[in-house]
Amino acid sequence: MSLDAVLAKIDEDLDAATERLMTFLRIPSISTDPAYKGDVAAAADWLVRDLESIGIEARAHSTPGHPMVVGHGGDGDRRILFYGHYDVQPVDPLELWERDPFDPSIEETPSGTVIRGRGASDDKGQLMTFVEACRAWKAVHGTLPGRLTFLFEGEEESGSPSLVPFLQENRDLLEADLGLICDTALYGSERPAITTMLRGLLGEEIVIQGPSKDLHSGSFGGPAINPIRVLARILSSLHDETGRVTVPGFYDDVEEVSDQVLDQWNALGFDAEAFLGSVGLSHPAGESDRTALEQIWSRPTCEINGIKGGYAGAGFKTVLPAEASAKISFRLVAAQDPQKIRAAFRKMVEEALPADCTVRFHDHGAAPASRMDISDPAFEAARHALSEEWPEEAAYVGAGGSIPVAGHLQEILGLDSMLIGFGKSDDQIHSPNEKYDLTSFHRGMRSWARILAAIA
Amino acid sequence: MSLDAVLAKIDEDLDAATERLMTFLRIPSISTDPAYKGDVAAAADWLVRDLESIGIEARAHSTPGHPMVVGHGGDGDRRILFYGHYDVQPVDPLELWERDPFDPSIEETPSGTVIRGRGASDDKGQLMTFVEACRAWKAVHGTLPGRLTFLFEGEEESGSPSLVPFLQENRDLLEADLGLICDTALYGSERPAITTMLRGLLGEEIVIQGPSKDLHSGSFGGPAINPIRVLARILSSLHDETGRVTVPGFYDDVEEVSDQVLDQWNALGFDAEAFLGSVGLSHPAGESDRTALEQIWSRPTCEINGIKGGYAGAGFKTVLPAEASAKISFRLVAAQDPQKIRAAFRKMVEEALPADCTVRFHDHGAAPASRMDISDPAFEAARHALSEEWPEEAAYVGAGGSIPVAGHLQEILGLDSMLIGFGKSDDQIHSPNEKYDLTSFHRGMRSWARILAAIA
Repeated sequence: MSLDAVLAKIDEDLDAATERLMTFLRIPSISTDPAYKGDVAAAADWLVRDLESIGIEARAHSTPGHPMVVGHGGDGDRRILFYGHYDVQPVDPLELWERDPFDPSIEETPSGTVIRGRGASDDKGQLMTFVEACRAWKAVHGTLPGRLTFLFEGEEESGSPSLVPFLQENRDLLEADLGLICDTALYGSERPAITTMLRGLLGEEIVIQGPSKDLHSGSFGGPAINPIRVLARILSSLHDETGRVTVPGFYDDVEEVSDQVLDQWNALGFDAEAFLGSVGLSHPAGESDRTALEQIWSRPTCEINGIKGGYAGAGFKTVLPAEASAKISFRLVAAQDPQKIRAAFRKMVEEALPADCTVRFHDHGAAPASRMDISDPAFEAARHALSEEWPEEAAYVGAGGSIPVAGHLQEILGLDSMLIGFGKSDDQIHSPNEKYDLTSFHRGMRSWARILAAIA
Repeated sequence: MSLDAVLAKIDEDLDAATERLMTFLRIPSISTDPAYKGDVAAAADWLVRDLESIGIEARAHSTPGHPMVVGHGGDGDRRILFYGHYDVQPVDPLELWERDPFDPSIEETPSGTVIRGRGASDDKGQLMTFVEACRAWKAVHGTLPGRLTFLFEGEEESGSPSLVPFLQENRDLLEADLGLICDTALYGSERPAITTMLRGLLGEEIVIQGPSKDLHSGSFGGPAINPIRVLARILSSLHDETGRVTVPGFYDDVEEVSDQVLDQWNALGFDAEAFLGSVGLSHPAGESDRTALEQIWSRPTCEINGIKGGYAGAGFKTVLPAEASAKISFRLVAAQDPQKIRAAFRKMVEEALPADCTVRFHDHGAAPASRMDISDPAFEAARHALSEEWPEEAAYVGAGGSIPVAGHLQEILGLDSMLIGFGKSDDQIHSPNEKYDLTSFHRGMRSWARILAAIA
């Protein structure tokens, strides 16, 4: 059977594939630091050459920031777009790394063999699982496993400033029927997952102003309004006693997850105690009538991400400050409209202001939640293919965080995506000593070969 | 009459007295900056020599910090201790000064002649009003105007670390019946004041800890408790809707001001609108059933002086922080016991903590309120003497802030003090371009001559 031959080729070629990844990892493509601009471009060029080596027509498209690598190849009825990113996080604090982050190595650890280095898991190693699957397919069959478009971004770790304009300006170039995104993790070390629900995100900052300047709390404490006190009162009013968000209309467009999905989630055996225990907690603090998994995957939230006001340094200063501010984010689900919620939140804050206080708002972005349409049979086909490769059955899962590219592909290209990745929670992405399990890399390649055989 | 001769001598000697002050102001005695240690010592030595020049036996006593200048002279039944400080605030931001802060000058301004320079009003100019009154008295009478002890501190602007131990170790040296402190302001530009009530101060810092480390709000938002939210809820519970502090027992030892004092305060014509208007406010925000003047002088408060938690820099970070903290101060009045209130506050915070949260408390000092016993006839005598000198009648006033030395003299030396000063609210103490009105300096000297004639 042809798939078996591809899987055998992947197994046979594992050392060479690992060597290619190591070469890729040696390029310090840190997108947020202008000092590495040339290295980011070099990583894009390396990818172009690697795609060309397996017969893909590829080019690095320049943007106001770092290049977008786009490649095309193969044939088939279903046009598939694969997304990954070749830029990496900065490496500080460098002193916490056990070796040069850009001198990757293969290491034996108590939990198995790992590829250690910046970008190994996020996202160079993941991206290469797909490229290597294509390479093996090409070696066995002389063709690619489907009609493929490759989109590799170089700015994912620095806020993707060029992504939306690039998608808008290159709709024709990127036209496809289905997206595949490889930038997520396994559900468990033996259980793969397809992420089909991603929470959206609304970011707000409020600055409450009271007096026109900082005052001495001895001279003015009492009669002068204290903006920290006003801010605390507003923030404490954002949740009720049961943990529900009190912004008017907040839950209007929140839909309940279907029983079918909930049953599947319940069957995952999510261990809320262990999940919270890993960060020193023991009680789910969200809506009291929801499980911890629902609280993360399917329920919207309001979090205060930062607060400041007055003097917060060493010692004490009896200041009565002129202003106090907080950064607040809402994780959104289902059909919640970020702009509608922003407006309701701002109105609520304005109505809560006492005399003599004013508020300034700063917009820190808005993205609705993404939900993929899993009625497309490709989803079930991919889930079965994954389940063939891994010890445990693949699950449809939600994600508490946002992966903006999934929403952008949906909005701009009209494309639902499967988010499938092989990272693990201990990969230390964004931290020192990042690694990617060799089994993630190996089984990742095999997974894509199986998925492409099933859907392309 | 002998007082008239002293007043005439003060008038005659004004230019010379101003020159002496200018010399004193040229010494950059910034106590908080170790680079100026030698200058602080030089200012102490200058004072010793100046006191000796009018027949006072004086000495700079070394301390672990800067010297204490103590002088004795004169005769009389009532032993009077005069306190001032010869250290000054730092001068940054230096670029906002219109001239070298330590190159003082006499300037004509639309509101009169001023002495411009760091320390002119706080407190070198004020301190010298007393010394110059004594000098004129000595010139006219050949003696000092009473049995006087001079205590000049060099650490007032850096937290007075040596003051309490020095008072405790030198009770005999400093023994007296009445204190005079010159470090306050006029009530109005034509109305002098004797401050007889000073609020106390209790400083607390609370650090609320939730998760064991900073979390990603996408991955944990919902089930993980957010310490900023907990902190906001606690802080917003510290006042009720009428502005009263809710710490249990907080008002137990608060006494009402006598009708006599209240009548006098009401007669001052305090303009709350102008007071608040000067800092961009229009509504007294304290206890709703109290006047603004009561809110500052005779009512206790709770203020949040600083708050921090999570990410509060530029941009946005979806962090769910491990901890959040706030600095809180209580202004205390009457017999309120700082330690009792600290304990009640801490208990209240602990009881408000939800599951999975802990709190750490930091003690930022505690001082009870000071109230002077104005039944001593010296107070009325001084008030009449001041009223003779100034266009408007002198008032007994309260002070919202704390002047710790008044409390220390009371506790350690058993000494009630009259706080009398001639600063003005526009003197820009602690700010660039500090000044002291020449009329404050001149009338200040004359005021002391009158007061000493009346009480010594």
